[in-house]
Order: sequence, then C-alpha cells, then structure tokens
Amino acid sequence: MSRSTTRFDTKKVNSELVTLTYGALVAQMIKDLDSTEDVSKQLERLGYNMGVRLIEDFLAKTGTGRCLDLKDTADKIQTAFRMYLGVQPNVANWSAAGDEFSFVLDNNPLTDLVELPEDLKNLKYCNLICGAIRGALEMVQLDVQSWIVQDQLKGDQNTEIRVKFIRRLEDAMPAGED
Amino acid sequence: MSRSTTRFDTKKVNSELVTLTYGALVAQMIKDLDSTEDVSKQLERLGYNMGVRLIEDFLAKTGTGRCLDLKDTADKIQTAFRMYLGVQPNVANWSAAGDEFSFVLDNNPLTDLVELPEDLKNLKYCNLICGAIRGALEMVQLDVQSWIVQDQLKGDQNTEIRVKFIRRLEDAMPAGED
Repeated sequence: MSRSTTRFDTKKVNSELVTLTYGALVAQMIKDLDSTEDVSKQLERLGYNMGVRLIEDFLAKTGTGRCLDLKDTADKIQTAFRMYLGVQPNVANWSAAGDEFSFVLDNNPLTDLVELPEDLKNLKYCNLICGAIRGALEMVQLDVQSWIVQDQLKGDQNTEIRVKFIRRLEDAMPAGED
Repeated sequence: MSRSTTRFDTKKVNSELVTLTYGALVAQMIKDLDSTEDVSKQLERLGYNMGVRLIEDFLAKTGTGRCLDLKDTADKIQTAFRMYLGVQPNVANWSAAGDEFSFVLDNNPLTDLVELPEDLKNLKYCNLICGAIRGALEMVQLDVQSWIVQDQLKGDQNTEIRVKFIRRLEDAMPAGED
C-alpha cells in the first residue's frame, strides 16, 4: 500500500451512515419540492456544491497535478470515487471521438437498500454524483456534462454515469490584472 | 486487530461526505421549518429512526449479547461510535446513582468545518446523535433520554452527550400470544 493511499484512509465513517443521511436528505427534498424533476435538479446542484468543496480536499490529499488529457481525468475521478465513496467504478464506453466516457458502478453506498416507490420512478436519485463530478471539474477549468445512463434503482444491472467533455475553461484572472 | 474489528471496516466512506451530506440536510430543514427548535426536534427524530435501523446492523456485525448493566451499555455505544462515526468518545461523568453518564467527543465528523451563524446559535446541530442513541436503545428495551451538554459549535472545548437511563421496557409480546 502506497503512502498516499494510506493518507486517504485517515478519516473514515461507516457507509450506512451516508446511506441513511443521504436518504433522509432526499426524503426531505421530496416533501418540500413540487416535482420529482425539481428534486433531481436540486440533487445535481447540491452535488455541484459538494464537488466544488471536495476538489480542494482531493488535490491536497493526493498532491495531484493538472490533468494531461480526458483519460487522465477519468483515472483521477476514479481515484476520487475510491476515496470518498469507497467504491471503484470501471471507466468504460469511450466515445469514438474520445470526448465521452462512463463510470460503471456495480455497487454504490448511496443506494444500498434503497427502493424507489412507483411514483418516484423518474427520480434521479444519484444525481448528486453527477453534480459532484461537474463541480469538481469546473474548479480545474474543465466544463463537462454528466448524467445517469443506467440505474440499479430502475432495475438496471449497474449504475452507469456518463461524462461528456464540453470545453476547457479559461483560467479566471484575479480582479485588477489583465 | 481482532477479527470482529476487521469486519467493521468492510464498508467505509470518507468522513467529508457525511459532513457535507449532513450539512445539506440540516440546511434543507432550516429552509423548510419555522423555528430552530423545530429543526433540533426533527434532527432528534431523524436520529431516532436511524438508531432503530442501525442497531440491527450493529448487533449483526458485532454478535453482541444483552447488556449486563448501564456500564456495559455505555461501552457498547462507544463501540458503535467507532464503527459508525469513526471516533471514540470517552465515557465520563457518571452520576452518583449510576443512572447517567456522558460521551465526551473531542472531534466529530458531523461538525468538521461547520460554523453556526449568529441566528442559529440555539440549533442543536448534533441532535441526530442523541436521537440515534435513544432509538437504538429502545430496540433493546432500554428507555433513555439523551441530550447535548457541551457543544464545540457553541465554543465549548468538547462535545458532551448525556445519556440518562429511565427504565427497562417490557419485551413486546408477539400478537396472539399471552
């Protein structure tokens, strides 16, 4: 086990706690928001905010540098899955143009023991993850879209999260410089 | 490391994820509920529901038996803190009658990097933990009260969670038996 892997493991909690806390959060949102679609959007936005915060932690803990290319980005997000969710998805289904790929998860702490009732079958329960990917990458000047392609909560065998590269963002200039 | 300790560690996630998810949940509740007091109550109730669920997992994973006395109960909850929150509080401040004690935490993943704004200074942010203790113990026929005595979010040096034994509950009889 490398030193850096050991460092990731300093503060761990039981995954059941995340499952239950996330479940409570989603339930609370369902109670408050009008439509399933709004809840899905809100979860994505929340994930975005988390990604924006987690990227700093990720960079500090891994000492990682700039991504060389999208392949490298995919590998680094894979590491982040392992660090934060304790699961290692496969990177798969690259588009011919090399600008899209998927993370395929065969298990996911967010959805352990979760069952969606009939009237919530359209809920994108794991949109938090899509948002986190988008938020984290935006902080390193990568504009991406991310969405759920397959979903174990809808009866699919795996959960597949798609990532599409849109463009490289310009480095923001500090105010007062040009 | 004992075998049972190893078993606890099978599914772990990063504590930042819990911190952020729990923070989002509390923020959502604050948006929806009228008073800080209602949020505190709701967090306790939510913790109660989690405790009711987590106790099964705890008993299954630890293979633990009936508590011998309140001292033994305190030790077992201490183990549960380690399993679920990844922290080991001290058991302290026993009452003379032996019916009350405290868990003293010097750090707490729920509150990492959390700061309460002035208008939420009365919020019992960690009430989830009090509720979880109450809910879990009720499932093993122990009626307790639990509340926060000291709170790092209010500037105290530690977070102290008090537990008071109220009574032993009768085993519920299955319907149709007497």
